[in-house]
Amino acid sequence: MSPAASTPAYRRLSVEERRAQLLDAALSLFAHRAPEDVSLDDVAEAAGVSRPLVYRYFPGGKQQLYEAALRSAAEELRHCFDEPHEGPLLPRLARALDRYLRFVDSHDAGFTALLQGGSVVETSRTTAIVDGVRRAAAEHILSHLDVTDPGPRLRMTVRVWITAVEAASLIWLDEDKQPPAEELRDWLVEQFVAVLNVTAARDPQTAALVRALASADG
Amino acid sequence: MSPAASTPAYRRLSVEERRAQLLDAALSLFAHRAPEDVSLDDVAEAAGVSRPLVYRYFPGGKQQLYEAALRSAAEELRHCFDEPHEGPLLPRLARALDRYLRFVDSHDAGFTALLQGGSVVETSRTTAIVDGVRRAAAEHILSHLDVTDPGPRLRMTVRVWITAVEAASLIWLDEDKQPPAEELRDWLVEQFVAVLNVTAARDPQTAALVRALASADG
Repeated sequence: MSPAASTPAYRRLSVEERRAQLLDAALSLFAHRAPEDVSLDDVAEAAGVSRPLVYRYFPGGKQQLYEAALRSAAEELRHCFDEPHEGPLLPRLARALDRYLRFVDSHDAGFTALLQGGSVVETSRTTAIVDGVRRAAAEHILSHLDVTDPGPRLRMTVRVWITAVEAASLIWLDEDKQPPAEELRDWLVEQFVAVLNVTAARDPQTAALVRALASADG
Repeated sequence: MSPAASTPAYRRLSVEERRAQLLDAALSLFAHRAPEDVSLDDVAEAAGVSRPLVYRYFPGGKQQLYEAALRSAAEELRHCFDEPHEGPLLPRLARALDRYLRFVDSHDAGFTALLQGGSVVETSRTTAIVDGVRRAAAEHILSHLDVTDPGPRLRMTVRVWITAVEAASLIWLDEDKQPPAEELRDWLVEQFVAVLNVTAARDPQTAALVRALASADG
């Protein structure tokens, strides 16, 4: 991690700091523009650095920049799920959702472009990054539920709810962030309980979980 | 609609019949292979026609073929939603879901590739076709519910449930079509009722709907 010694006109940042600065600039551009409309020049301008500097960090051009920004956003998103394994379960879920909705709020158009697909820069690689985040979310939820060996019905329930959260976030952005984030968060938590209850009627593992949830949180 | 007079070696089909035959062949290939792995030559072979004939119908190549096949599948999917406005509501929903799940079952990998994105042939145009089907599904549901002016909360509930149906279908294909389609269908119908109930707690329009549903179907 040597300082970027060849760019004396700028504050001396380490390679990692510079990279993070450029990705931040890129993410803020992606928040308001479709990925294919963001050029390396735009990133240079937004970050207040030279064009050659941006090219040095992302020699693969726009596609490399986009994937790096996406990886960085995915990393940030994973941090939303960090929640101590203590206290009642539903408030833990609500706190994670609060962080997630703040992420959605701040990334806005970039989040929409990414999840809605159809972007020229979407590839099987970017899809894999997004799927990785979904899988991480499911694993976090199951670990909070203290489930180590989820059956297919419980797994499907959790995965489908995660997709519902994504869909609700996209609609929320599309509807000018209405209803308020707190209402959306409560609605999502209640949906989680409701769909678990539906599954519980035909799956003993989920039924046991629902009973545990009700006795701990109710 | 003149017959394809220049292909005397084949049974004489009208232009529309020939086109439908080629799209059927394409759709059956898409059911087992990623769209980018299906060439016009493959379609010619599957349909038992000459390569030039396929190129005559799809001069735009693979991308044109894919979009035409997608439009044809979207049309078929819309027919799943055709359901008379009579009798109890939930059985209507169950019948539409049965047809939808049969569609998913028969299109298999093609359905997955399309909805999961990341395909090289996915464009904003193909995304628009898929979104059109989603919108049609939401309109059908609201019309069966006799709602002409859905508020944002009811609209979000219906749209999120439709996404949940899609997600569940993808997982179902991924899990070797387990649980059985009938169980999945019942689970989806019950989820619909459950999420409407959650929304009803904070939305008078949805609350009225839930009461009507309970008195008519319960």
